[in-house]
Amino acid sequence: MILEKVDSPADIKGLDMDSLRTLCSEIRNYIIMCCAGNPGHLASSLGAVELIVGMHYVFDAPKDKLVFDVGHQAYAHKILTGRREAFLNNRKRGGISGFPNRDESVWDAFGAGHASNSISAALGFAQASKITGTGEKVVALIGDGAMTGGLAFEGMNNCSENDSDLLIILNDNELAIDGNLGGIHRHLLKLTTHPTYNNFKDRIWDSLSSSPLLRRWIQKMVRRTKSGLVDKSGGELFEALGFRYFGPINGNDIAEVVDALQRLKNIHGPRILHTSTVKGKGFAPAEANPTIWHAPGKFDPVSGKRVDKKYEAARYQDVFGKVLCELAETDGKVVGITPAMATGSGMTEFANRFKDRFFDVGIAEEHAVTFAAGLAAGGMKPYCAIYSSFAQRAFDQIVHDVALQHLPVVLCLDRAGLVGEDGATHHGVFDMSSLRCIPNTVIAAPKDEVQFRNLLYAGLHITGGPYIIRYPRGMGEGTPWEGAAITPVETGKGEKLLEGSPGCKVCVIAIGPAANRAVEAAGKLREGLGTWPTVYNAIFLKPMDLSMLEDASAHRLVLTVEDGSLKGGLFGEVSEYMASHGSGTTVRGLGIPDKFISQATVAQQRKECGIDCGGIYSELAELLKNS
Amino acid sequence: MILEKVDSPADIKGLDMDSLRTLCSEIRNYIIMCCAGNPGHLASSLGAVELIVGMHYVFDAPKDKLVFDVGHQAYAHKILTGRREAFLNNRKRGGISGFPNRDESVWDAFGAGHASNSISAALGFAQASKITGTGEKVVALIGDGAMTGGLAFEGMNNCSENDSDLLIILNDNELAIDGNLGGIHRHLLKLTTHPTYNNFKDRIWDSLSSSPLLRRWIQKMVRRTKSGLVDKSGGELFEALGFRYFGPINGNDIAEVVDALQRLKNIHGPRILHTSTVKGKGFAPAEANPTIWHAPGKFDPVSGKRVDKKYEAARYQDVFGKVLCELAETDGKVVGITPAMATGSGMTEFANRFKDRFFDVGIAEEHAVTFAAGLAAGGMKPYCAIYSSFAQRAFDQIVHDVALQHLPVVLCLDRAGLVGEDGATHHGVFDMSSLRCIPNTVIAAPKDEVQFRNLLYAGLHITGGPYIIRYPRGMGEGTPWEGAAITPVETGKGEKLLEGSPGCKVCVIAIGPAANRAVEAAGKLREGLGTWPTVYNAIFLKPMDLSMLEDASAHRLVLTVEDGSLKGGLFGEVSEYMASHGSGTTVRGLGIPDKFISQATVAQQRKECGIDCGGIYSELAELLKNS
Repeated sequence: MILEKVDSPADIKGLDMDSLRTLCSEIRNYIIMCCAGNPGHLASSLGAVELIVGMHYVFDAPKDKLVFDVGHQAYAHKILTGRREAFLNNRKRGGISGFPNRDESVWDAFGAGHASNSISAALGFAQASKITGTGEKVVALIGDGAMTGGLAFEGMNNCSENDSDLLIILNDNELAIDGNLGGIHRHLLKLTTHPTYNNFKDRIWDSLSSSPLLRRWIQKMVRRTKSGLVDKSGGELFEALGFRYFGPINGNDIAEVVDALQRLKNIHGPRILHTSTVKGKGFAPAEANPTIWHAPGKFDPVSGKRVDKKYEAARYQDVFGKVLCELAETDGKVVGITPAMATGSGMTEFANRFKDRFFDVGIAEEHAVTFAAGLAAGGMKPYCAIYSSFAQRAFDQIVHDVALQHLPVVLCLDRAGLVGEDGATHHGVFDMSSLRCIPNTVIAAPKDEVQFRNLLYAGLHITGGPYIIRYPRGMGEGTPWEGAAITPVETGKGEKLLEGSPGCKVCVIAIGPAANRAVEAAGKLREGLGTWPTVYNAIFLKPMDLSMLEDASAHRLVLTVEDGSLKGGLFGEVSEYMASHGSGTTVRGLGIPDKFISQATVAQQRKECGIDCGGIYSELAELLKNS
Repeated sequence: MILEKVDSPADIKGLDMDSLRTLCSEIRNYIIMCCAGNPGHLASSLGAVELIVGMHYVFDAPKDKLVFDVGHQAYAHKILTGRREAFLNNRKRGGISGFPNRDESVWDAFGAGHASNSISAALGFAQASKITGTGEKVVALIGDGAMTGGLAFEGMNNCSENDSDLLIILNDNELAIDGNLGGIHRHLLKLTTHPTYNNFKDRIWDSLSSSPLLRRWIQKMVRRTKSGLVDKSGGELFEALGFRYFGPINGNDIAEVVDALQRLKNIHGPRILHTSTVKGKGFAPAEANPTIWHAPGKFDPVSGKRVDKKYEAARYQDVFGKVLCELAETDGKVVGITPAMATGSGMTEFANRFKDRFFDVGIAEEHAVTFAAGLAAGGMKPYCAIYSSFAQRAFDQIVHDVALQHLPVVLCLDRAGLVGEDGATHHGVFDMSSLRCIPNTVIAAPKDEVQFRNLLYAGLHITGGPYIIRYPRGMGEGTPWEGAAITPVETGKGEKLLEGSPGCKVCVIAIGPAANRAVEAAGKLREGLGTWPTVYNAIFLKPMDLSMLEDASAHRLVLTVEDGSLKGGLFGEVSEYMASHGSGTTVRGLGIPDKFISQATVAQQRKECGIDCGGIYSELAELLKNS
């Protein structure tokens, strides 16, 4: 085993090509073995092994800055940089993050999790290096999926401006998660499928002279003598943006990768190396179906048999997908939009059944929202599903293109609240706090599947927007929702879930499924103490049910419970009401405290934040004792 | 006069080319005349006259959808669509908006104000048209400056995906506001300056056949016979993204514009017409110096002499620019970043004096923040200045790339609060409310120039970030700040500006310059009633000064005053504290109510929201009477 002797990239510097090849294979097997028992982002990391080994072989991190986009492909990087053992606890509580993380390791030059930030960050490093004159090299590794994000384009556009020395390695596996889309994808496809595949050695002539004039002359000569190549060889997109384009090369051939990186290491200016890789490389089932092996859960590393996770109840994403189909059946104006998360958002069936009304816009959250606004302005009824954390990218579009123009866009924020193993970058805990200030906006959070379905149906009848529905990752409550009668939802109307014991001075206002945990906690109090609070489900954070707040203000104390930031969300809304009405009601809040929450299971994270049944029970018991 | 008979685009349909030319000239003169006395976005609108006349001549709005990017170039559109008279009250209270606005007119298909949203919105219209089969045409007019925004790229990338019928007119004046930047700019420049300028008639061959195969064959033939053209003619960027590229044409020649639009009107698929225009066209001083004539204030329409606005005090943007130079002199690691607002942010001197440490990244707010984060990770001390309203674009980058990685980025949010004539799209009123929930974040708002300078100096010593300083548009308080001794700022420490009368049960907590208005209001109360409140200046919204809040909680009532949304900002923070501490203190808030505020002067808007001296006085008088 070579790998077991590798504690830092220094240990691979002296290896010959055969050993490097063996090392790649060992890393790959180690990733498969670890992920089989401890789920992670398998397929992306398998595809990027040679690229990462090559980067560490040719460049000198941590002095040289290696920046990983999204970061779920960086397992080989973690394993090579002193975290081989720690990788056994990848994504676990107290273990290492599934993404590069500056707090975790000096080798992680820049953090990741959200897509498309690597080029901008790398450009920052490159300019800093230029100013300080310290001469470190900067490399960004980015997938073709992340290339569709506007931030990546803004970064690329700016690279040529300041004579920046940086190398972008484009890891092109022709997939985002569900399959890449759009013009840039077609462009890349043209490049990789063209007969002149691997024109790297031709293109390298671009770099032979450091004089721009001489270089251009050489380039011209090369082009003239190979005139057939000119309009075929490609890279126009990148060259138009001021990059020097090299490739495509086979990114799963370590010799080819090392050769290319060595040639490109000391070239001046912004340059891009286009590499073609196979997502899931080296693990046959994943190569055959990389989409479902993106983050596959547990599996048998030999047979490739997946251990299907048992869900005792439908997941919210599945409810969303099913209901969207129901809505589309009844209303020809219903359209569905996803930024590259068709599967994760439960939209596969919708995509198949309503092809003309399904829009996967690629990783492009800003565009997803403005495009939805345009569809609404054109008379459609758009349902735009975005993970809450990624919808942060579209904050301005929600303000400027939807709310200000009161366009009827239903914005479905999936993965709202704590999300578990993906950790700090992926929680959807800021949505309620940050969006509450936007005028014309409705923000709802259902407590279960039935309420979720009713809210989605209510979206058909809105005349303005945004109409935001946030719902968590994972399973619902198991409430029978399919085929249930639809109850019309009155916007801004909460509900009383439980009447408290007579004279109880404490009540609870909760939102989302946490309301059910509050009811459970109150039930335990009834059993134990004989005193229990009234529990309200706000349903709507905005507009808030003022008669509910008035009722609540008759209590000495209100406890708010939410799966979101305590600063400015439900706790903020209720506090503002109580404080300004001078009712003398004290407000306490359970929610996400003012810090980033690291990876763990959702259950562990909810416990940490005190928003599970046990946490609510303890808090209520304490409050009842003192009230 | 042709123009005085034009009440809608129907009135121009029958005009011959000479009359159209005359009409353009009349519109131009009308814009100059109106803007001379009632300031507006002059130069952009002058440059786009022929494009807009051509659009209305060839297309049939409002059935056909004309979408304007940014919208400050759309004056001719407003004048042609029944708002000729109303244009006299452009940007005034009760008048029309300076930007397209769906609430204002059926001719304004989609709202604008922020850059780069037009392509996504147009694509929404195009897809809606396809689904409903109503056959309307869709045109987006976008400047080269707005093309650098990631949202525009996301939109373009998605256009080829769904076989979308839309025409993008690229209005290329080689300027954003301060001069356009980046790879795309160079690409456009190459296209417009190449000897084959106006290759429109060649390229039109692209469109002659609706069969893709036949079209490609024709294309190939054309290319072969004009082999010299192939690698020169350009448009590669757009063609790589799946667009058919036409142009460049002279966008200030109405005959050329009409001819091109008529040819392109019925072509299928996503297509882009590259037009070259002169910003400020037809007004010599503006043509000579379009940057300073972007939004020039009042001027003499004959002599071109500008009526320089007298500032009785330095503007905050000027203080920022000067202090940034001071900081850069003392610390070689200080770098300055702006997304295309070097002049507006007061960074001209810095740009000239510290060329290597100045970065204008173009209209690209997301990139600006992540790039700053990369610079910080590389050891620099970045000061990134963004208008508060546009910083909404970078919400996720502030969370993910700065706060989560606690990188020491000083984020200077200019134009925070109400901004006046630019109206609803441009107010910076959501920053405090939306950013308060982000962990690791400092949010400060100085009350005057001296405090602003001290905060900027404090930014030198931060070890994490974001360190956000928000400050308003326009003048400071006139406090002598240049060369003043620097007072170290303790993060999270407020100050008492005025001790209230003994036993007064009301106090004020304000933030930003509004704190001075509160002191003035208290002074008036002292004179009138002999009772007046203590006035605190929070300085920091986050972390909030808890000892100040404890002092405040000794009062029966706290009035908060802020130039920002009442939902979740200072009022929210103080309410959360008071409500949760059970002090029984009532909290009332003055700030921006939960609606969008239309165009007016800043003074009018502040009065409307009750955050001027008079409003604070009235509220306090009322509260004191009842306390």
